[in-house]
Amino acid sequence: MRPLDFKDGVLRLIDQTRLPTELVYVRCSTYKEVASSITDMIVRGAPAIGVTAAYGIAIGASAINAGTKEAFLKELEDICSVIRSTRPTAVNLFWAVDRMYNKALDNRDSDPDTIKELLVSEAVKMDHEDVEINKALGSHGSKLISDGFTILTHCNAGALATCDYGTALGVIRAARDSGKNINVYADETRPYLQGARLTAWELLQDGIPVTLICDNMAGHFMKSGAIDCVIVGADRIATNGDTANKIGTYSVAVLARENNIPFYVAAPISTIDFSIETGDSIPIEERKAAEVTHIKGIQLAPDGIKVANPAFDVTPNRYITAIITEKGVLYPPYKVNIDGLK
Amino acid sequence: MRPLDFKDGVLRLIDQTRLPTELVYVRCSTYKEVASSITDMIVRGAPAIGVTAAYGIAIGASAINAGTKEAFLKELEDICSVIRSTRPTAVNLFWAVDRMYNKALDNRDSDPDTIKELLVSEAVKMDHEDVEINKALGSHGSKLISDGFTILTHCNAGALATCDYGTALGVIRAARDSGKNINVYADETRPYLQGARLTAWELLQDGIPVTLICDNMAGHFMKSGAIDCVIVGADRIATNGDTANKIGTYSVAVLARENNIPFYVAAPISTIDFSIETGDSIPIEERKAAEVTHIKGIQLAPDGIKVANPAFDVTPNRYITAIITEKGVLYPPYKVNIDGLK
Repeated sequence: MRPLDFKDGVLRLIDQTRLPTELVYVRCSTYKEVASSITDMIVRGAPAIGVTAAYGIAIGASAINAGTKEAFLKELEDICSVIRSTRPTAVNLFWAVDRMYNKALDNRDSDPDTIKELLVSEAVKMDHEDVEINKALGSHGSKLISDGFTILTHCNAGALATCDYGTALGVIRAARDSGKNINVYADETRPYLQGARLTAWELLQDGIPVTLICDNMAGHFMKSGAIDCVIVGADRIATNGDTANKIGTYSVAVLARENNIPFYVAAPISTIDFSIETGDSIPIEERKAAEVTHIKGIQLAPDGIKVANPAFDVTPNRYITAIITEKGVLYPPYKVNIDGLK
Repeated sequence: MRPLDFKDGVLRLIDQTRLPTELVYVRCSTYKEVASSITDMIVRGAPAIGVTAAYGIAIGASAINAGTKEAFLKELEDICSVIRSTRPTAVNLFWAVDRMYNKALDNRDSDPDTIKELLVSEAVKMDHEDVEINKALGSHGSKLISDGFTILTHCNAGALATCDYGTALGVIRAARDSGKNINVYADETRPYLQGARLTAWELLQDGIPVTLICDNMAGHFMKSGAIDCVIVGADRIATNGDTANKIGTYSVAVLARENNIPFYVAAPISTIDFSIETGDSIPIEERKAAEVTHIKGIQLAPDGIKVANPAFDVTPNRYITAIITEKGVLYPPYKVNIDGLK
């Protein structure tokens, strides 16, 4: 279940705004189309955004018609700027853009056509790496999951948020594939409903038992003993372990600790921002009011109502039991153990 | 702004399922229509349900055509049973039915026509009392609110949930009316969206500044320092102070305590169930899956998804800073102080 597919210079994306009632694809043959697809959340999820950005740069580079190597690099830099500006919070985006741009810089003495080919190869490599990373991460994480566990997840950190297999849902898949019986509670995840639309759909497709709940029910089910652990993805992790993820994650983490339930973050190392010390430095994207006041054109709130719509929140490290990465499971003190990854 | 209005034997209700985009009324001229209006949440909110039930019994009694006093009382008992079975959690419903039935029993020696008149008078009296109670409650509660406070509320404990003025929103109105600048954050309150549809509408109508957020954003705004206190209503309060209220209230209470924010419950004494010691004895209504999977016919989740939809949760007394009633503000130990109300 891959949300993206690159072939013959065209990136085909599942339009995640239209799931689960319609499975339709968007074709991007220019970097601007790729940029819009990220901004408009046709593709979302930190790892998937990163690889989509990489393909966008490869597509943009292929179309550059510059007279000199310098002019080529200048145009490439402009493309990278556009891709960078699509969304502010997930650091995988900037990580991917940097990796692509550095690939070009490292080969600046080659002719543009060679660099163009190298950029396509690099994006394809990142795509394949992402799947391998998720499988490694899933394998490490599944050791934390006992047979019969019921796992709460928030938003969608599944195959649809990555290049395949998923991070949080990758751990769940790995646990299931190792023979454990797993049940999942999926928060619907307002306002964009990634849980109701994407996680529920993805797990149903995969035959993993899932119960959909509203976000405000998670605490009730934790208190009633229905939940054995929480696993979520991440959009950016500071070097002290503070984690930005989909709005509502902080609340789930507080409720988990209050009820003595382990709270795990599952994310590739590319989600760690080694340049920041704490979550206070992570910019939180504010999205438009209509995402809250309307659903598919249906008006839910009165005309003229003021709305706040932060897309992410930051969970302080003290609420996080462990961070599951492709290199193993990190425990506190995160500052020391994240530093050890460098 | 009254959600209900009784005149010439007919109860007119604002259809709260159609707010805020349409202000339309439902007319109930039989007790069965009143019962359906409660079950279908055309009217909701514990105090409003109580008074609606009372009017339903008065309407039902008026239509009884019994040969004897005994037959009249038997038919009245059957009507009370139907009204009782409409919703299970809000205790005001049972309190109101008991009060009406006892009114009839106390006058069992009168002829049925006299009892019919007494029941109408009793329902009207309960209606008027509710408004007075809310104003008294608001006046007590407003002393807890400082000028410039930003108050978070969940669901709708406003005029629309009562006969007028509101409980949680009554405190806010009283604070505003005493000259304080008050801002409100309203949780949208999935799945039924009482916050987005009703609280936002009601406060906008009343000129009180309100910001609509999704339920999963409340913790983020508490952590960021935007919220000075939380005020919610209640559907049933046990004698130890444990409080059943709209699903999500427990989560808000935990997040408030975690962030050292006062958490207040505003409710009339009729919401206290003196027959139960703890919240464990409060039945939690499970409502249908379609409330979660669909909004106004729009499908949000995949076909065949399993859903949990508890309409309420129980907030343990340790999270509740104070309970605001018409007789004053109750503080812990609630067991002692609630007992003192008897």
